[in-house]
Amino acid sequence: MPWEEMWRELAPVGRSAATGGYRRDAFGSAERELSAWFVEAAVERGLEIEHDAIGNAVAWWRPEGSAGRGVLTGSHLDSVPDGGAFDGPLGVVSAFAALDLIRARGATPQRPLGIAAFVEEEGSRFGLPCLGSRWAVGALAESHANELRDRAGIPLPDVLAEHGLGLAPSRLLDDVAVFVELHVEQGRVLAELDQPVGVASGIWPHGRYRFEITGQANHAGTTAMEDRHDPMLTFAMTALAANKQARLGGHRATFGRVDVAPGSTNAVPSKVTAWLDARAANEEALADLVLAVERQGSERAGRDGTALTMTPESVSPLVRFDPDLAQRLAARPSGRLPILATQAGHDAGVLATAGIPTAMLFVRNPTGVSHAPEEFAETADALLGVEALADALLGMAGVLR
Amino acid sequence: MPWEEMWRELAPVGRSAATGGYRRDAFGSAERELSAWFVEAAVERGLEIEHDAIGNAVAWWRPEGSAGRGVLTGSHLDSVPDGGAFDGPLGVVSAFAALDLIRARGATPQRPLGIAAFVEEEGSRFGLPCLGSRWAVGALAESHANELRDRAGIPLPDVLAEHGLGLAPSRLLDDVAVFVELHVEQGRVLAELDQPVGVASGIWPHGRYRFEITGQANHAGTTAMEDRHDPMLTFAMTALAANKQARLGGHRATFGRVDVAPGSTNAVPSKVTAWLDARAANEEALADLVLAVERQGSERAGRDGTALTMTPESVSPLVRFDPDLAQRLAARPSGRLPILATQAGHDAGVLATAGIPTAMLFVRNPTGVSHAPEEFAETADALLGVEALADALLGMAGVLR
Repeated sequence: MPWEEMWRELAPVGRSAATGGYRRDAFGSAERELSAWFVEAAVERGLEIEHDAIGNAVAWWRPEGSAGRGVLTGSHLDSVPDGGAFDGPLGVVSAFAALDLIRARGATPQRPLGIAAFVEEEGSRFGLPCLGSRWAVGALAESHANELRDRAGIPLPDVLAEHGLGLAPSRLLDDVAVFVELHVEQGRVLAELDQPVGVASGIWPHGRYRFEITGQANHAGTTAMEDRHDPMLTFAMTALAANKQARLGGHRATFGRVDVAPGSTNAVPSKVTAWLDARAANEEALADLVLAVERQGSERAGRDGTALTMTPESVSPLVRFDPDLAQRLAARPSGRLPILATQAGHDAGVLATAGIPTAMLFVRNPTGVSHAPEEFAETADALLGVEALADALLGMAGVLR
Repeated sequence: MPWEEMWRELAPVGRSAATGGYRRDAFGSAERELSAWFVEAAVERGLEIEHDAIGNAVAWWRPEGSAGRGVLTGSHLDSVPDGGAFDGPLGVVSAFAALDLIRARGATPQRPLGIAAFVEEEGSRFGLPCLGSRWAVGALAESHANELRDRAGIPLPDVLAEHGLGLAPSRLLDDVAVFVELHVEQGRVLAELDQPVGVASGIWPHGRYRFEITGQANHAGTTAMEDRHDPMLTFAMTALAANKQARLGGHRATFGRVDVAPGSTNAVPSKVTAWLDARAANEEALADLVLAVERQGSERAGRDGTALTMTPESVSPLVRFDPDLAQRLAARPSGRLPILATQAGHDAGVLATAGIPTAMLFVRNPTGVSHAPEEFAETADALLGVEALADALLGMAGVLR
């Protein structure tokens, strides 16, 4: 089945008619439908499917004559709430298409080729990005996993159990020698360079930081302005400070999620909880950025009579992808692919951090918009991505010792 | 049953062990339990209970010799989320206690005395404060009531139907000549004057205004700061502007409720919806305040590349309580009660606006905190409130023609 046909099959799954965005929450019905589609696509191609307890899947092609640890590609199938179609599924669909292309060429890789689908990459449900790949490489303690809850307060183990899944250790990646993930670009670098495909050099360090600002609930009408301890004001100043600090330093800082208690129109809030997503080119700059935001927020809290505490929820260090691999992927017969850094976390970053030689391919996104319905890649660009991926997989299977 | 005993009975109903606040959502289980308590308290006293279709109740005492239209007191039994114990129930409990006191004195009012409990005064569930009293006086169109939904999206008629209630027109107040509502003070005026009880002169005009700020959802990592259209920044500046405008003018402005879409930590939001509660001493000042906040928010929206629209959801005009009644209530044998304005909406305001001569008594709140667990009145002050209310009821029943 060609790339375009697979893409059409997935297009309606989890799409909201109201927003045009995708709601493919980890372990939700749309994401489970995509997981079932993954199994069907693998079965159609005669691949051997392996799952680990948490729900990650790898479909292996072990052609006669192939030997040794395998070459893995793939991505994830979940989305952020009202996200785009491409973030995740593009890598999975393109992996199947690359395998089809290799077979169509009559080529036989020297090593097994695997296609992976990792669960809960976005962290939209349980708050921890790359949950599935972290579990697969053993980078997530069972005690931590047991504590994770979704927004409805349901613990991860309960959600897993509902789907016949659990937290047994994963051996899924034991036979993986190298990993390459294809992904839609989430910025405009390739568009500005007028290049359809690029190679990743690494991932900026980044983290999620929970800001809890406590004030005093009170009547919105009768409480004089000067008698208030309003955490909304502290939050507002903190959000503006984060934006300014990131602008000044060329970093990224975003408050995209806010909970207000009690959340009543006619009550001064008692508490605002807000999550900062912060990223910078190096770890020192990231630490300085978060510190500056916390300091400015705390200064405002002093004036508002509120209290601010900041808790890092997850911090991912700088990821450097394998430089030799990147150079090899960039050297294409049609011309050298650009090599660029990304500010987005990926399962590839988790595997690289775990010591698996890893590379990433990016496909051009005309507007750079992602995590939104407008996220997009031209089919022609996607097909060039499939070619680059097929060559990368064959090349890696050949050169690895 | 004395005031203190009634108070003890109500204390545990709807109280959250986690926050210490009350969750007496309109038509929720705690509020329904309080409604059942109201009926029991009325039956114990041999009162005649009337309900209207929407669930408002009046318990009438029509002693032999009384005649003509009645004197009504009472308040409401619902609370804001995690609100205090006093806002509403103090007026209802004190009404029963005042009736008991009148009977204990052996006094017989010249007119029937009624005790009211109005539903959904806070507007916390359906977004429209004083829903019950508005319905009772015919100030809420059925078409509007049919459109009201709670946060879960359940229409008001469905919630009513669940409890055997509905939207038939109310005749509950047809026989009411005058209304007096006793309420805990929601500011610190009485505390500062060292007075246990006061009389209301009127209610500031006030309103709820929905600010919808639309931007562009995008990836929180890969989207350069200068490429964003982030509605959270526009909201933050709007919230700070509202606070500053209210401070400068001696008004009130509060953002206590915010919804963020998609609400994901790693996505720049596509939309922020926030509700402004604004109040001022007169209608012109209120209009100016809201206009200034909207203008400053829109200016920031221009810089953020977002779009801001403001929609008034409910605006209540200035309420002037009957000045003669207020003077009469203020003249107490123990000394003159202070007369003060309030910034809070009340069922009394709705009845006054509908043309029923109306007064309010306030009981001192030491810290002024309300709509929060710390809302408080001393029992000694509450009992002085009961005395003032009993005298007011007898006095009105006597002087009315």
